[in-house]
Amino acid sequence: MNITDIFEYLGTFAFAISGIRFAAAKRFDWFGAYVVGFATAIGGGTIRDVLLDTTPFWMNNANYLICTAVALLTVIVFRKYIVKFNRTLFVFDAIGLSFFTIVGMQKSIDFGQPFWVAMIMGVLTGCAGGIMRDVLINDVPIVFKKEIYAMASVFGGIVFYVCWRLGMSLMFAEIAGAVAVFALRVYSVMKNIDLPQMKEEEHDE
Amino acid sequence: MNITDIFEYLGTFAFAISGIRFAAAKRFDWFGAYVVGFATAIGGGTIRDVLLDTTPFWMNNANYLICTAVALLTVIVFRKYIVKFNRTLFVFDAIGLSFFTIVGMQKSIDFGQPFWVAMIMGVLTGCAGGIMRDVLINDVPIVFKKEIYAMASVFGGIVFYVCWRLGMSLMFAEIAGAVAVFALRVYSVMKNIDLPQMKEEEHDE
Amino acid sequence: MNITDIFEYLGTFAFAISGIRFAAAKRFDWFGAYVVGFATAIGGGTIRDVLLDTTPFWMNNANYLICTAVALLTVIVFRKYIVKFNRTLFVFDAIGLSFFTIVGMQKSIDFGQPFWVAMIMGVLTGCAGGIMRDVLINDVPIVFKKEIYAMASVFGGIVFYVCWRLGMSLMFAEIAGAVAVFALRVYSVMKNIDLPQMKEEEHDE
Repeated sequence: MNITDIFEYLGTFAFAISGIRFAAAKRFDWFGAYVVGFATAIGGGTIRDVLLDTTPFWMNNANYLICTAVALLTVIVFRKYIVKFNRTLFVFDAIGLSFFTIVGMQKSIDFGQPFWVAMIMGVLTGCAGGIMRDVLINDVPIVFKKEIYAMASVFGGIVFYVCWRLGMSLMFAEIAGAVAVFALRVYSVMKNIDLPQMKEEEHDE
Repeated sequence: MNITDIFEYLGTFAFAISGIRFAAAKRFDWFGAYVVGFATAIGGGTIRDVLLDTTPFWMNNANYLICTAVALLTVIVFRKYIVKFNRTLFVFDAIGLSFFTIVGMQKSIDFGQPFWVAMIMGVLTGCAGGIMRDVLINDVPIVFKKEIYAMASVFGGIVFYVCWRLGMSLMFAEIAGAVAVFALRVYSVMKNIDLPQMKEEEHDE
Repeated sequence: MNITDIFEYLGTFAFAISGIRFAAAKRFDWFGAYVVGFATAIGGGTIRDVLLDTTPFWMNNANYLICTAVALLTVIVFRKYIVKFNRTLFVFDAIGLSFFTIVGMQKSIDFGQPFWVAMIMGVLTGCAGGIMRDVLINDVPIVFKKEIYAMASVFGGIVFYVCWRLGMSLMFAEIAGAVAVFALRVYSVMKNIDLPQMKEEEHDE
């Protein structure tokens, strides 16, 4: 288990926890919470892999299933205390967002996609699981309304690309991209920065 | 038309009826009801086939379309009496769940997937159509909150696997698995058994 | 840029505008509005391409992304006046529906699918983006409840098929099909024609 595995499982765990907690707030049963947690964790990468026409990554390896099971147990057992770990879970989630974004981009590039497709795939990998979670619990996707989340993915993707084009090694460019996602995500939450909201149209009718 | 065809069409019919009745309760028009019925009937198998990277089963054969059309006609014509057939439709639905679970597992094994993937595919085949139905009518997926439904799929999958590993013929193992899904589904509804619900977190804030 | 390109971009633009306006009504942020607009514009064709097992069309060409960006800018800048262009946008949307339906059918036929599959793919190409939009903004899909929209696709598909079978050239049959979609769509809105609604069941319980 090397450092990228650690990032990957921290991110998977944090995404699954987020899905399970949202499901718990809607009083889902254990099965429902497990499914929502799993969908949050693997949903983005699954859509990416279907669009790239390759076998979804979680079908090669049962670790994602197990990681989600651990997350479910954690939420059930530590229900009373979990709110105290919100800050830690936020950091794990930001790690997941950074890691999944860059992994999604890298995989798309490996499949011969142009950079702009890779960037969409990076954002999908990082954000589509959370959208799937919100659709499954019948809420409006939170990523569309609050905070800098997906834009951190986009920003990291641009940093990755620029570094790479400037001649950095792939590994350094990836690290720079991931750090950029993480930094913008954490900074925007600390400073309460949101994207501009759309305004309503004015109707006379 | 052999016995498995009969099970398949009973199940498809029952799933389509369920989608159409939910759509009717939301006052959808005929087209909407047809689409929701069709999605309920073929949604799970379609997701399975996309993940397995094969042509969705209903594109090989117009029978599923026709079966859904019959279901739509049935609901429109027998609207006043359909509630009296709830018990029969419940049995058909349980047959569908059993049949689709085992078919989904079998197909995944044929595609060289390991058993744990096959079990996910079995549950998806049996349950994802109902989830799609609830997303399309903008409700919280009922399978996440009420009754033993998906867990019956999981249980039948385990029975299938154990029987197979114990050296039973594939056919017997499949029948045992399907009977297990059906039995647990019917038993849990008769006895009003639910899965444990997630509890809300306690917040002081 | 020939005439079919013009139709394609008018349709894409109108579909994106519709997604962005719905997102604005829900007070999404700019990113959310962009994603909903993009999903509305390319969602149907993407599902079609995944089912046909080919690379989603928008991954070959960044024009759809750019077209959605132009639509977003348009809605932001002309917010106060856009309601005055409802009629023009309706015509563009009807062009998009006609064009996407026939393109979806043509592509499916090129992939060796039978006519009835091509018709489903045509309807999906024309309508599934709008369904995806409504799922993402957490509304009931409007196409299931109001107006003749998908049925215009179905009607145009039948006209296409009949003309083709009667020996017309493919191009003429396609034009006839597209005109039929457009005509039925516009006529039904002018005359306020809806499909029959499903009625609720009567329960004594």
